[in-house]
Amino acid sequence: MSTISFHNPTKYLLGPSSIEQLGGEIKKCGFKKVLIVLGGGSAKTNGVYDRVKKTLSENGIESEELWGVQPNPLISKVREGVAMCKDPSKHIEAVLAVGGGSTIDSCKAICAGTKMEKDVWECYIGKSPRPEVSLPLFTVLTISATASEFNGGSVISNPEEHAKLPFYFYFPIASAIDPTVQFHLPWRQVMCGAVDSMSHLMETYFSRDASNYTTRQINLAIQRSIIKSMERIKANKEDLEARTNFCWAVSLALNTLPEFGLSGDWNVHYIEHSISAFNDKIAHGEGLAVVSLSYYPYIYAKGICPEQFEEWAETVYGTKDVKAAFAKMRELYTFWETPKTLQDLKLVPENIDAIVKIEQDQQKVGVKSDLFPLKEEDTRKILQIAAGVATL
Amino acid sequence: MSTISFHNPTKYLLGPSSIEQLGGEIKKCGFKKVLIVLGGGSAKTNGVYDRVKKTLSENGIESEELWGVQPNPLISKVREGVAMCKDPSKHIEAVLAVGGGSTIDSCKAICAGTKMEKDVWECYIGKSPRPEVSLPLFTVLTISATASEFNGGSVISNPEEHAKLPFYFYFPIASAIDPTVQFHLPWRQVMCGAVDSMSHLMETYFSRDASNYTTRQINLAIQRSIIKSMERIKANKEDLEARTNFCWAVSLALNTLPEFGLSGDWNVHYIEHSISAFNDKIAHGEGLAVVSLSYYPYIYAKGICPEQFEEWAETVYGTKDVKAAFAKMRELYTFWETPKTLQDLKLVPENIDAIVKIEQDQQKVGVKSDLFPLKEEDTRKILQIAAGVATL
Repeated sequence: MSTISFHNPTKYLLGPSSIEQLGGEIKKCGFKKVLIVLGGGSAKTNGVYDRVKKTLSENGIESEELWGVQPNPLISKVREGVAMCKDPSKHIEAVLAVGGGSTIDSCKAICAGTKMEKDVWECYIGKSPRPEVSLPLFTVLTISATASEFNGGSVISNPEEHAKLPFYFYFPIASAIDPTVQFHLPWRQVMCGAVDSMSHLMETYFSRDASNYTTRQINLAIQRSIIKSMERIKANKEDLEARTNFCWAVSLALNTLPEFGLSGDWNVHYIEHSISAFNDKIAHGEGLAVVSLSYYPYIYAKGICPEQFEEWAETVYGTKDVKAAFAKMRELYTFWETPKTLQDLKLVPENIDAIVKIEQDQQKVGVKSDLFPLKEEDTRKILQIAAGVATL
Repeated sequence: MSTISFHNPTKYLLGPSSIEQLGGEIKKCGFKKVLIVLGGGSAKTNGVYDRVKKTLSENGIESEELWGVQPNPLISKVREGVAMCKDPSKHIEAVLAVGGGSTIDSCKAICAGTKMEKDVWECYIGKSPRPEVSLPLFTVLTISATASEFNGGSVISNPEEHAKLPFYFYFPIASAIDPTVQFHLPWRQVMCGAVDSMSHLMETYFSRDASNYTTRQINLAIQRSIIKSMERIKANKEDLEARTNFCWAVSLALNTLPEFGLSGDWNVHYIEHSISAFNDKIAHGEGLAVVSLSYYPYIYAKGICPEQFEEWAETVYGTKDVKAAFAKMRELYTFWETPKTLQDLKLVPENIDAIVKIEQDQQKVGVKSDLFPLKEEDTRKILQIAAGVATL
């Protein structure tokens, strides 16, 4: 048994006045100017932009702005941010991400890229190590999904290379999460966040080395909490208690806690990344829903970690019968209104070969599961099942 | 619903080579000389002392030593450490605690006290705030119990004032936990650690504000893990997987995670602190076992948070009947070989008045529950039940 470490230094602020506290956190660190990075404009309509500007100005912090980060965020926008931060005339000392996972992921790359001579994309393709230092990052989260506000991970797309790849940079210094900001998100976005976080938990729960049963039980407890919160949020989108629990559970789902001492899998994410690298109009959570519903029955049928599947079935879905748990998971996703087939994602069986090709190329840069190393025929079959043109 | 924050910056290293990695962690921070603080000598017999000296010397770090921290650690030893760290001729830049909770608690006070003009005891009695800065602390944990390696808390005794009081300083920078070091601890010490951590979890689980059901479920998952680990450790003290899980669960039990968004109670600890302030030969875990078995049935009978008691009974003890869960908890503590009565602690009913007096005095310095504010007659009755001279 080797030595493992847990280290999550992010200060996590959760509650209706969390955004108002963030300026003070930045000031405490001594920073006088930040680059605010934002998405497409929702921060202006939901009031978050004004609140951010106010807490900064109240704490004497100047800012520049970079708008336009999009879902499946692009390396080109990251490069724009790096150029701004490297410009000595701007005196930018820290970055403040305002948005969801795409914005925060982009900012981690901007923070690290600013301290690199090479292009930061080199990290994602395995040609450069993480730089020793990084600009400090603060975040205001406006949609709970990726847990990027509470970890060091970043996933960036490079359409020229048909690639969407993960890399691990640094944790944010502090993150502010106001659950009331999420009251009026479209259900589809809430659903995508829930699916993403359930996927994070399942990716880390099902492991070749699963000897840390403490972590396993914590992981499953968080899965149950997400299910409970979603039921309450669907009934009342302004249920602050459920929203608060949802935010906390989704952030925990990928903050390294529910994977401590577990070796993890990540195949569902790898396959989904191939799908959205193939078509960047597909939302990450929607892709994950489709892949999950096909992938887990597939590997269970292959005899992968049956005891963990049984524990998961019983603890999360209240049945000792794993196949019944798969059926309940499908019911849950139906209740959440997720897509369930490749066709629901507006893909056709003829796209499968191209997606398989991308997935196999990803493995060449080291993106590979040790629970179930995907052969070409596995990925193809999983996608065919998802398209309804093959069965288990 | 107010804004709450989670911030645990400690780097937690768990595994057989964790001690060997600690010198590198200290070196990375740039420190060249540390004060090693130790207990009564077990670090020499179990090999930990030599391993610590080796990792320090391999990383070019010099050290001074302070031996003799005892269980229910004394403010006098803390003052000795502060004097050493304040001595400019010694050039001490950080403190390295090697031992259990008593040693680490003492070191937190030494680290903070070194940066204070006033005596650090002033913090505990509410006459001084936490200093703005503190010497950095590293820890090597040799017995899992208090979770002091993963939080900022410190409990120190002052026999001249018949007081044993908690205060919150700073988190360690990094903590190393090698579970194999604990293979040959006497069962009584392992049991005390298990009871202490179960008590931490119950103290935070039962709360006036318990709206964070995500945290509640994580809290209960950790309780189950401790029960499972103890069963395996009792069967095989060299079960590395169980020891590793036990270390992780006990550290999590008071790392602020299982209390996030819960208001907490802490009466069992307050009463136990009065008991061991009255007689410092009583081990913390043993006192907690006795108080817990009497306190929880008492407040449940008073109608305190019945829904939480039901959830706890079902999730941890597998029964919807809370009174049956109390009986199962008593069976569990019997299996663990804890004391169960005041007499098992070598106290007599005639001591109760003096202990009640100490507990009431503690409340005057702000140590008070908001779940069930203890009146004098409550504390007396709880202790009388523990002594078998009263019933519910």
